[in-house]
Amino acid sequence: MPSYIAPTKDMQFVLHDVLKVTETGVPGYDDLERDFTEAVLDAAGKVSTEVLAPLNVVGDQVGCVMENGVVRTPEGFKAAFAAMKDGGWTALDCDPEYGGQGMPYVLATAVGEMFVSANMAFNMYQGLTHGAYSAIHAHGTAEQKQTYLPKMVSCDWTGTMNLTEPHCGTDLGMMRTKAEPQDDGSYKITGQKIFISAGEHDLAENIIHLVLAKAPGGGEGTKGISLFIVPKVLVNDDGSLGARNAVSCGKIEEKMGIHGNSTCVMNYDGATGWLLGDLHKGMRAMFTMMNEARLGVGLQGYAVGEAAYQNAVIYAKDRLQGRAVTGAENPSGPADPLIVHPDIRRMLMDQKSFLEGARAFTFWGAHLIDRSRRADDAAAEGLVSLMTPVLKGFLTDKGFETAITAQQVYGGHGYIEEWGMSQFARDARIAMIYEGANGIQALDLVGRKLAQDGGKHVMAFFEMVKSFLKENEGDAALKEGFLDPLKAASKDLQSAAMFFMQNGMKTPNAALAGSYDFMHLFGHVCLGFMWARMGKAAMAALEAGASDTAFYETKIATGRYYMARQLPMTATHLARIQSGADPVMALPAEAF
Amino acid sequence: MPSYIAPTKDMQFVLHDVLKVTETGVPGYDDLERDFTEAVLDAAGKVSTEVLAPLNVVGDQVGCVMENGVVRTPEGFKAAFAAMKDGGWTALDCDPEYGGQGMPYVLATAVGEMFVSANMAFNMYQGLTHGAYSAIHAHGTAEQKQTYLPKMVSCDWTGTMNLTEPHCGTDLGMMRTKAEPQDDGSYKITGQKIFISAGEHDLAENIIHLVLAKAPGGGEGTKGISLFIVPKVLVNDDGSLGARNAVSCGKIEEKMGIHGNSTCVMNYDGATGWLLGDLHKGMRAMFTMMNEARLGVGLQGYAVGEAAYQNAVIYAKDRLQGRAVTGAENPSGPADPLIVHPDIRRMLMDQKSFLEGARAFTFWGAHLIDRSRRADDAAAEGLVSLMTPVLKGFLTDKGFETAITAQQVYGGHGYIEEWGMSQFARDARIAMIYEGANGIQALDLVGRKLAQDGGKHVMAFFEMVKSFLKENEGDAALKEGFLDPLKAASKDLQSAAMFFMQNGMKTPNAALAGSYDFMHLFGHVCLGFMWARMGKAAMAALEAGASDTAFYETKIATGRYYMARQLPMTATHLARIQSGADPVMALPAEAF
Repeated sequence: MPSYIAPTKDMQFVLHDVLKVTETGVPGYDDLERDFTEAVLDAAGKVSTEVLAPLNVVGDQVGCVMENGVVRTPEGFKAAFAAMKDGGWTALDCDPEYGGQGMPYVLATAVGEMFVSANMAFNMYQGLTHGAYSAIHAHGTAEQKQTYLPKMVSCDWTGTMNLTEPHCGTDLGMMRTKAEPQDDGSYKITGQKIFISAGEHDLAENIIHLVLAKAPGGGEGTKGISLFIVPKVLVNDDGSLGARNAVSCGKIEEKMGIHGNSTCVMNYDGATGWLLGDLHKGMRAMFTMMNEARLGVGLQGYAVGEAAYQNAVIYAKDRLQGRAVTGAENPSGPADPLIVHPDIRRMLMDQKSFLEGARAFTFWGAHLIDRSRRADDAAAEGLVSLMTPVLKGFLTDKGFETAITAQQVYGGHGYIEEWGMSQFARDARIAMIYEGANGIQALDLVGRKLAQDGGKHVMAFFEMVKSFLKENEGDAALKEGFLDPLKAASKDLQSAAMFFMQNGMKTPNAALAGSYDFMHLFGHVCLGFMWARMGKAAMAALEAGASDTAFYETKIATGRYYMARQLPMTATHLARIQSGADPVMALPAEAF
Repeated sequence: MPSYIAPTKDMQFVLHDVLKVTETGVPGYDDLERDFTEAVLDAAGKVSTEVLAPLNVVGDQVGCVMENGVVRTPEGFKAAFAAMKDGGWTALDCDPEYGGQGMPYVLATAVGEMFVSANMAFNMYQGLTHGAYSAIHAHGTAEQKQTYLPKMVSCDWTGTMNLTEPHCGTDLGMMRTKAEPQDDGSYKITGQKIFISAGEHDLAENIIHLVLAKAPGGGEGTKGISLFIVPKVLVNDDGSLGARNAVSCGKIEEKMGIHGNSTCVMNYDGATGWLLGDLHKGMRAMFTMMNEARLGVGLQGYAVGEAAYQNAVIYAKDRLQGRAVTGAENPSGPADPLIVHPDIRRMLMDQKSFLEGARAFTFWGAHLIDRSRRADDAAAEGLVSLMTPVLKGFLTDKGFETAITAQQVYGGHGYIEEWGMSQFARDARIAMIYEGANGIQALDLVGRKLAQDGGKHVMAFFEMVKSFLKENEGDAALKEGFLDPLKAASKDLQSAAMFFMQNGMKTPNAALAGSYDFMHLFGHVCLGFMWARMGKAAMAALEAGASDTAFYETKIATGRYYMARQLPMTATHLARIQSGADPVMALPAEAF
């Protein structure tokens, strides 16, 4: 069975050596001293390893079962969920006014990575709840907040997000679910929603569904959509649970992975709901928390990859097969361990260099979200908004690739369910699809984010990279391995942006045909930038006489690998982008 | 449920417009007139669509079940297997002396593609049998051939290949299965084999296991290995079935995919076996048919991708979501079909341009095998031997990627098992692993094939591409879209080969660290070469006044896409290769 150990040390490196969180001046970051974050991360790591990870395979193999409208989660999930609640893990970055601990999002992100690595399907129950909590926190009335938030912070009640219907996913303007206003100010919600993660289960006494529906008078398309709070069990004025609402789970889906999470068809049959936020502004309300939600899915992509990688390393060290081409390294054994072989190394280095870069990128994104919220920093908000589709799209694509590569290290055993590597691949696959399929992320990036606020966020990004390069140009140790490749990659990104500017207006398809490549090109530059910063931080630590030289030297070598072997992809992405719309759009639809 | 229609027209194009099979002078190819191959392909296509494809989902969802040592295949498999036998499909390219039809391998490959696309797991029962047939045909005594081959040609008896043991897959030198010689000339085989596809099932009255085992006196490592015929049921002198042999299925594996095929742990408990071929030359005997077997797995990679692609096209035309950025294309409907969106086009073009290139490449490989066998063409043998790891490794990697991309077109529905796209992804995954994991293919290519016979086969390949470029340099229509990109890609391949030559001797790891990238670089050049030839053939057909202009114009546009958007990858692969061993091997094993 696969195992998982939280990479606490690497997280500490990102928080303190790279982001230097306590020096940022962000309100609330004073708490994040090295010792404190270490204690939190160690405790979260213990829960991940001892409570969550052992349930991961069970969750996959047993899955959720629905009988007579009741959904049962796999054995052990209830106890583990109780342990998460008791440990206060569900409340980590929630508002203290409602029972939260008020920790910064960047710390919750680090903890979240561990929980996802250990058991992605399980962690979704609390992840979805957190999303719903955030929406109510941002848009609810004082009464709504008092009614729902304390119970959601503690996960006594969980939450869901209801967007998709059978005939519409991306294009929510076609939504059919209706909301009819009632005299008492409530609404009757009628319609069917699909793909509702954690829509029904046995982990909580109530489930608070956030449902998009059309109320009269809003006009066509997405303009008519409002957001509603629809509890599974109605809540009495005194906060106690009342009657069962007219919402039910029609079925749970058989999926490729995340079997431990119930993916439900939800039927609303005149269910009682209350407007959340402004009438006909439901899309805006639902997407307020989009940056956070999408960063969370990007995190899922690499976090599952991390778990897969750890097991690939164990197997590569353990499995004896063949001899090193440079001479036996385990002469007393029947063969050398797999890890001596260069192509196995290539696979491990691809995984390791991506994962550590992804972690830094994600933590940086979380830090920018903190900065925008806690310090009202509009530039940080603009920057993370620009990078959100990259965080989601690039990290989930590459995270899945990482899980596939880890599976490949196992050879035939990787294909056998018993060994657990297939589950990582199957689980990671969904992250490329939900919360806006990755093609939609690319469209959001190129069609919306690039030009947002007159393009000032992308200019700020370029400026930031340029400043970094300039500041460090005299650093000979950093130059060849880090700065030169980053400079070249960044130049490719700028050329691509320039191509879109020159061609996008007259030929929108020219930009859109290159959008996916642009998202990946941007992702490589972001990881390259992270690696340059990490390389610098590691060198600085060594220079300052850090005792754990092996850690920092490994960091530098891993960064050099990413720069030498991954960053060259930017040239290919640029070439594809510059080939324009013609090759992509040449055929009439009938030709397929 | 997914559907499948055989791409007969495209196969005809490859056979007749590109390879011009009837003009090659290969013995037996005279039969392959356009009308004849069309009739065969149409008939095979009908079986694929009507008999095999409908069983694909059943095979996945029900899978094989073992009870009391008996393995049952999914419902419908028996009848379908009978239909395949009755139609003579199992005998297509087998030796007429043993009941085969003696058709060229290139035709059997085209038919095989259809069967795999329609139902990969099902087709493995006959595919494995064909492999075992080939080994006995090449190495068996006259008596062995008479005893086994007619029944295997008809698939009354099926066959298996037994190589892997729990502790050794790639490194067969560590094999523990023993063969003890008996007085009557037979051997007692004792040991355990794993991952035995079609090891036990209910489709045939006997199963002929080919088993690698160590007989006394052969020395250490793979030198001591011999190959044995071990029938499940012993065969009496008169050909009738006798006693049950001491071989049994210990369990069947739960796998990520190909659930319709039983993957068995096989226990040999002093089972009676007979030497096949020379004593202690078992590896050589087993691998005689390696080019064919590996080409067959490469074919699986893209053939499953083809089925996935066809369904992605259907969904992209059918599913209404969003509006074309250039103006509504389905103004009377609630939205436009997905296929109007550039990023959906990118996905479909990536799939289509790979699949058609892969088909041409595979058929060309099969043709070279025919040429080597039927015309004793050593150059063809050398060339296909060189390209075999590319056919296997590149096509299965890209075939899996194709299935993943097809799944992505479906959005959320792609992740739900009911829609069938997950199965394509899960099934395609195994092809990257078995018959030599793709990293082993890359090692075979760079460590063995490149330098084989003094490097003359790779030089012949370069020469062939160069001649093609030279012959056509005056063709303005071909130049920009096809010849120029092929030239650049081919130059990258030569630079990579040069890098290995200059560095490989003194630093073997420098070559091996780049082996995987070299395999992919080689694959792109092969597909680029195929596309240049297909572009030329399509232009020639148009010039000759072919009536189906849409088909040929589509072919040219699809080729241009591959050249413009896929071939630029060669530069990235070259950059990675030229970064050498250092980034890959920098870390000590403990650093992972």
